[in-house]
Formats: sequence, structure tokens, C-alpha cells
Amino acid sequence: MHAITIEQPGGPEALLWTEVPDPTPGEGEVVVEVTAAAVNRADVMQRQGHYPPPPGAPPYLGLECSGVITAIGPGVTGRHVGERVCALLAGGGYAEQVAVPEGQLLPVPQGMSLQEAAALPEVACTVWSNVVDIARLRKGDTLLVHGGGGGIGTFAVQLGKALGATVIVTAREPKHARLLDLGADLAIDYTSSDFVGATLDFTEGRGANVILDIVGAKYLDRNVAALAPDGRIAIIGLQGGRRGELDLGALMGKRGSVSATTLRARSVADKARIVAGVRERVWPLVDAGAIRPIIDRAVPMRDAADAHRLMESSDHVGKILLLP
Amino acid sequence: MHAITIEQPGGPEALLWTEVPDPTPGEGEVVVEVTAAAVNRADVMQRQGHYPPPPGAPPYLGLECSGVITAIGPGVTGRHVGERVCALLAGGGYAEQVAVPEGQLLPVPQGMSLQEAAALPEVACTVWSNVVDIARLRKGDTLLVHGGGGGIGTFAVQLGKALGATVIVTAREPKHARLLDLGADLAIDYTSSDFVGATLDFTEGRGANVILDIVGAKYLDRNVAALAPDGRIAIIGLQGGRRGELDLGALMGKRGSVSATTLRARSVADKARIVAGVRERVWPLVDAGAIRPIIDRAVPMRDAADAHRLMESSDHVGKILLLP
Repeated sequence: MHAITIEQPGGPEALLWTEVPDPTPGEGEVVVEVTAAAVNRADVMQRQGHYPPPPGAPPYLGLECSGVITAIGPGVTGRHVGERVCALLAGGGYAEQVAVPEGQLLPVPQGMSLQEAAALPEVACTVWSNVVDIARLRKGDTLLVHGGGGGIGTFAVQLGKALGATVIVTAREPKHARLLDLGADLAIDYTSSDFVGATLDFTEGRGANVILDIVGAKYLDRNVAALAPDGRIAIIGLQGGRRGELDLGALMGKRGSVSATTLRARSVADKARIVAGVRERVWPLVDAGAIRPIIDRAVPMRDAADAHRLMESSDHVGKILLLP
Repeated sequence: MHAITIEQPGGPEALLWTEVPDPTPGEGEVVVEVTAAAVNRADVMQRQGHYPPPPGAPPYLGLECSGVITAIGPGVTGRHVGERVCALLAGGGYAEQVAVPEGQLLPVPQGMSLQEAAALPEVACTVWSNVVDIARLRKGDTLLVHGGGGGIGTFAVQLGKALGATVIVTAREPKHARLLDLGADLAIDYTSSDFVGATLDFTEGRGANVILDIVGAKYLDRNVAALAPDGRIAIIGLQGGRRGELDLGALMGKRGSVSATTLRARSVADKARIVAGVRERVWPLVDAGAIRPIIDRAVPMRDAADAHRLMESSDHVGKILLLP
């Protein structure tokens, strides 16, 4: 098969469409012939050499895909060759085929093309595990989503609304109309406005109950300032640095909490638990049309470098798909 | 009645036994004639002027007491004059009488004197809400308790063991025998040992799943280092400062979380929710003798200054009671 490989970590030009050995399904795995994979910010970090794949994961980029099962490994039950699926991956989506643990497969939602379904698994699992499983978003809460324009952000806006929350997003102004259309109650241009003041104004001084953050250190103090009493900050990215000063007195004044997670490093069992939760609680919302995959564009997988350039420009809204 | 009042915030000598007006029960409150009150570290901070009582709370020190109901306010049902109770207070325990919202009353546990029962409400509610409600300690987890020798610590050791956890405590060496006797699996003298290394050694490199911390900023980085994957740090005191650097990358590598709370600032409704949880889940363990109040000594309430000197020396093990 072909896969995108990296000769030397570096810029987008490091991504090469290369002939590599076909994968074989291990114990509890299936092989999926990839219809589409989606690009995540973590892929950019892996390309730069900052995010090595976890032990046992395929060496290639790509944390989610859709496709058709072509082989069944030992110990797998209830799956068949020819089945259409989408999947959360520990790596390997930028390829014509990928081996996947059975517990990371999800059905293609109703009324959705196989290609579109590639845009959902990683964002659905990341947003679900952070916003609901860890930060326990409840109906009536206010959810503040930083980086509202990306794949994570566009999904989080829709999930927050579907769960009955008020949703505030930060994104550059050209993306606002689309985010408001997706259901966001307020969009803040972080380049020209103070998100703390805007969030407190909009919530009549209460603040956000849950903050989904991709910025990290640079926003740590301001996230605490924007937090409601008993609020939860869920950090899933460190685009603004990893070491920051935390005012524990301010956090204590809010009875707040700060969590920081990545999905990729979780065990196969833990991923299966999250995928099962997503299937049970999120997939019905997708089947019902309350959450749609937001796709910026689809490009040939051999042109993955172009997709990475677009991701790094942050000019996209929603997911970028790669087609092998 | 008499109460301990503070003429000017300052040292223990600021505490004066003074004649003050009797309390009257407001809507949903009862008045308790105090048999015993217990001293908490927050009382020392309030005496120093650093911890003003929340709105609506009695102005006097004292976050827990036991005694007998002497008056019933409007809207209170199912309580009677003469009933023996202990209570979580927003303040006012250092007095001969105190008005208490009904939802903050707990029954005197089986086989326990009314005086002893004063040692339980604040620690039980603080430890329960942090270790179980927020940090979700599970059977088989490892719980690390900083400041294991105080009222909070001696309670947390017993609750952790009763819930099936392995318990590690930090305390000065003279307190170790007593803490091991209470069930601690390992006691670390923080003045001579590195608690991170000792915790990792004892858990074969895994670390603590839950850390109950009273130190704050000074321990923040080390607590993250001692944390197990998916671990939770629950901060309930800032004896080591409020502003500290947090390495979000390290926290993310553990998929960890940091919460910081105080019990006193919670609403009456929230306190009632926590007291109800304690009554349902913790009181049966106390009734069964699996958790006992650890009392260092009882002193006359008019000598509250001596009790504060002892608390500030950290030479006590367990609670210090005040008898009006």
C-alpha cells in the first residue's frame, strides 16, 4: 500500500507519499481500507518531531479515518469484511490501509457519506471525554470553547448546544457567521477583544462553567478569571505554551479545577471505553442531525503537505479530509 | 450568651471570651446550645484577619460543633427541642449557642459521646467532598494525604482505608506511629524525605491516584510529579503559598487534574447536599467504628488562645476541642 511517511521531521514538505508494507490485523484488530482520513493539529506536531506515536501504534500520521473492513484479526467477533466504519486511531490514518483495535470502531452515522464520517471520531471522542466525561457539562451550563473554528471547536459548539448549554466561542471574526449558524450564542474575536470581559458580560458576571482550551499556559490565568463558581477548565492543547503561573487562591475562590489530557496516549481499553460512551451518548445526536461533521475541504492524500499548510494558517473552518 | 470575639485581628491573644447577644433561628434554622466546638486551621486565618466570614454567617469563629437543639425556626420540619446533633457551620461555633441551617445538621454517630461528635462535621464534609465527590477515589486507588497528622489528615487516612484505598501520608516522624495505627500504609517525614520519590517507590512507579493537599503552590510541581496517570490533586489549603508555576505539559502527560476548593464559601444548598452525602455514605462507616474521631485534647473555650497556639505549633494529632 501507500502511506504518507516522514523522511526528516520538519515543514509540510517532509510529507511524502510512499510505498510501504500492508498492515496485518493483530489480536482484536481489523484492517480498514481507508476511504478518507482527517487532519488534526497533533499531526502537525508529529510531523515536526514533537509527538512520537505511542508504543504499538502505526508509525504513520493520522488519528481518525473512515473506510471498509478488509480483514479480521484473531479474537474479533461481530465484525465482517465489507462493513463500513469510521475509527479512532492511535496513528496510521494517512495510508491506504490501517489496522484498528475493534473497540475503536464506530458505525457510519445515519444519512452520512462514508467520506464525511472520517471527520468525526477524533473530535467526538476528544470533546466528549473532556466536556462531558471529565468536565461534566450539564444542561443550562455555559461552555466556553477556545479555537471555535477548528474541527474540535465546530464539534464542541454543536455538542454543547445539543446538551442544552449556552455556548461561547473564541475565533477570528471571519469565522463568526459560520459559528453562530452552528448554534454558538456568542463569538469573540480574541485578536481584538478580551475574552474574560466578554464572557463575564455575556453571563451577567457568572462566567463559564466549562472551558475547553487548546491554548494552555498563555490563557491559564485568564481562563481562571473567566470561570464560574465550581467551573472546570479542560485543556487539550498547549498552543500557547506549557509552563504558566497558576493562582491557586483565585482557583480556590471559584472552587475550580484544571485538567489536561490527550486522547492519543490513552490505553486501548480506555479508548474503547470512550468510544463506547460516544456511541451511546453522542452518536444518537449525530444520527438525528443535531450534530453534523463540518468539513472545510477534501484533498488528495498525496497532497497532505497542502492540507498541513492550510491547518497551520488557521484559515479553515472545520475538518480537512485526505482521500487516498 | 458568651462567645469568643476578636477585638483586633492578630495573634492568639486577640481571642476574648465576651458577653454577646443570643442568636435567634432564622427561616430554616435551629439554635444549638454548644456542647463542644472544634478548632480548624481556617479559624487561625480568620483570627489574623485573612478569612472573613461569608455573607449571612455568624461573625464568630468556629466551623463545627455538637450540642442540643434549643429553638426551632420557621420552616423547619422533623427537628425537636432537646435533639442531640452535630453540625457543619459557616461560623459561630466558638460560642455558647449558634444558629444553624437545618441541612447542616448530622446525627450523633452510634456509640459516640456528644462531645466527641464535635470533631467530625467539618473534616468529614471537607474530606468527603474533595476525595470522593470531586476526586472520585475508588477502591484500589492510592491516596496521598499531605499533613496527615491534623484533623483532616487523620480523618482522610481512615476514610481512605475504609473505602479500600492504599493510603500514604506526609507528617513529621513523631506522628508516624499513630498514623500507621490508624491504617496508613506508608508515612513519609517531609522534613527529611522527598515525598515524590517515596511515593513512586512505594507504588512501584505508578504514583498516587488522588492527592489531598493543604500546601498549595510550594507542592504544585511535586504533586504533579507524584501523580499517577489519570490522577487528581485536590487542594484544600494554601499553607505553602497561592501562586505557583504549573507545568501543563507534565499534567497532560499524566492526564491529571488540579482542583482547589473551600467548604465554607459554599452556599447553604451546596452544604446541605454535601452533608446529605456524608450522612448517607460516611456516617455508616462512623457508626460501624471504621472511622473514629481523633481528638488531641479538649480545652475550656475561654482558653481558645491556648488551642490556637497548639494548632499553630502543629504538635497536635487530630482535633482540638473547645468546651464552653
